[in-house]
Amino acid sequence: MDMIKPGSTIGILGGGQLGRMIALAAAPLGYKCHIYCPEANSPAFQVADSYTVAAYEDEAALEAFAKSVDVVTYEFENVPAKTAEVIGEHALLRPGATALATAQDRLVEKTFLSDHGLAVAPFKAFESLEELELAVAEIGMPAVAKTRCFGYDGKGQAIIRSQSDIEEAHAAMGGAPAILEGFVPFNKEVSAIVARNPQGSVAAYPIAENVHTNHILDVTTVPANIDGVIEDTARIMGAKLADALDYIGVITVEMFIIEDSGEVIVNEFAPRVHNSGHWSIEGARTSQFEQHVRAICGLPLGDPRNIGTVRMKNLLGEDINDVEQYLKDPKAHYHHYGKSEPREGRKMGHVTWVDAE
Amino acid sequence: MDMIKPGSTIGILGGGQLGRMIALAAAPLGYKCHIYCPEANSPAFQVADSYTVAAYEDEAALEAFAKSVDVVTYEFENVPAKTAEVIGEHALLRPGATALATAQDRLVEKTFLSDHGLAVAPFKAFESLEELELAVAEIGMPAVAKTRCFGYDGKGQAIIRSQSDIEEAHAAMGGAPAILEGFVPFNKEVSAIVARNPQGSVAAYPIAENVHTNHILDVTTVPANIDGVIEDTARIMGAKLADALDYIGVITVEMFIIEDSGEVIVNEFAPRVHNSGHWSIEGARTSQFEQHVRAICGLPLGDPRNIGTVRMKNLLGEDINDVEQYLKDPKAHYHHYGKSEPREGRKMGHVTWVDAE
Repeated sequence: MDMIKPGSTIGILGGGQLGRMIALAAAPLGYKCHIYCPEANSPAFQVADSYTVAAYEDEAALEAFAKSVDVVTYEFENVPAKTAEVIGEHALLRPGATALATAQDRLVEKTFLSDHGLAVAPFKAFESLEELELAVAEIGMPAVAKTRCFGYDGKGQAIIRSQSDIEEAHAAMGGAPAILEGFVPFNKEVSAIVARNPQGSVAAYPIAENVHTNHILDVTTVPANIDGVIEDTARIMGAKLADALDYIGVITVEMFIIEDSGEVIVNEFAPRVHNSGHWSIEGARTSQFEQHVRAICGLPLGDPRNIGTVRMKNLLGEDINDVEQYLKDPKAHYHHYGKSEPREGRKMGHVTWVDAE
Repeated sequence: MDMIKPGSTIGILGGGQLGRMIALAAAPLGYKCHIYCPEANSPAFQVADSYTVAAYEDEAALEAFAKSVDVVTYEFENVPAKTAEVIGEHALLRPGATALATAQDRLVEKTFLSDHGLAVAPFKAFESLEELELAVAEIGMPAVAKTRCFGYDGKGQAIIRSQSDIEEAHAAMGGAPAILEGFVPFNKEVSAIVARNPQGSVAAYPIAENVHTNHILDVTTVPANIDGVIEDTARIMGAKLADALDYIGVITVEMFIIEDSGEVIVNEFAPRVHNSGHWSIEGARTSQFEQHVRAICGLPLGDPRNIGTVRMKNLLGEDINDVEQYLKDPKAHYHHYGKSEPREGRKMGHVTWVDAE
């Protein structure tokens, strides 16, 4: 099977912390990384062999980039379809264009999930105010209106609790195609992180339990405080999705758990390594970043099991400056993403505590 | 106290695997690295923010380099004194010039060790054949002749087992000042790796047991299979040396153990991270590379304890290509240094097994 050998070069679209941590995991395996990102001074440039600063629409730059590397991956799911197409003409793109296209449109995503037997909240597409009213009548309230594309960290979303919210929610979509989703009375938010290589091997990480604050991930805990049957169900659902997409790389599936009924509902998936998997750097036998590199290079996958109880906390804005406090804690592993401006709410780093080391 | 904050830049003299692994450990703490190395395409360049290709005698390049960074460290003990001096005029050099000067000359080194109550093999300096003959008469045979400067991996050394070896041993020194050392009837070779920060905090790693093949480190095991009193003695000797040198950074002290007598004899020390500490990347709570960065930046030191039983094996030459074998082993962590030519005997990477993870 096609193994991309150590010594080869991995191209990464996107130069943020995820690209940076992929590059840091690729190096010990002997891979060089070439980062492609429109922003100068991107954090990933600091640890990469080479980089290109160019727009994702710059086809000449994309072509030169693709030709200079042995495989291309990405750190964000909103890679434009045309960008993926240009890359795909000159290099292996992993994960492939299907995963990207499916993840980028909530309607396509939910339809795909539901067609493959993976439970999702009731949903209905809308554009006009009239269509939204019909959708609310069908799905009931509370419900959430979301733009089909380009939403993240709670942006492009509006909750509808009563008839009087409908008009505002419609306006919040800004005229973009959207879907209405039924509210899931969940107890827990978790994520299933799964790797799949071109040979079809799958490695599923222990389920991670996530707590969000202001729509941004705050804390992840592993193992999740859930029933063993639910744990297995969620992991198997993640593996099933990876297979259904004929996926190569690490995929993250965000899920809601309804403990009373034992139901596991897929919220959405990201065709990439994920913030809720950062715990794995010190907390798992193989980190999600090394696992992603192994998968896209066609190498055997590593052991995804956790090492005891692990907790990861994001450091937003000025929180990054509490460096001494974390370094003094013998169980804490401090991570700084190399960003210079600690703007409020910006993901600047994270800390992982491994208790059972 | 002077803390060099995350976001600052660390300058590293030398672009081999040690510089590379320092850079890989500096990044998660938020430091950028600038590598200075005379060889183009050095392995460390692949993971560093910036690099300079220039000779160690190029004073203008050294000055520009030193001025562009917040602290300078190095991956090899043979940094020329003049290089250290030029760097020291424009930047903090850590570890400092005393540690370098002491480590570079076996006569100065042994004298320093012995003056500070650290046991060494009997030694005597010589230059002429006559002086060597007198030294042999005093120290006895077998004995080892070693050039005072620039020896490593067994180079510049000759064993004297009988009178007839003396002339050849003298010739092997190539006219350079040398010392004769008495043979130590040791059972085990170990290393004590110790970190010390500017505040005077010291963290001593568990003693590592080393097996050499053809004068090159082959396997390191932690914990060493030695008596607890010897373990403590060796660690305390390492800490004592770090204090005596007013050392900042990670220092490695190679020692011989004579189990019958319980004696611990210092062979030599290296003012840097060391091959016999690579086990700590996955096998200790804080790796020697992160520890070195913490120390030279004036940060609190990390917990040096091992996580269960750890074994590190060097991958020389073509051994580096057994990648699938190692990646299939769930307890193995494969490291490739990014060197392109797997020449025979060249250190290309290493593998670490952590059993008790």
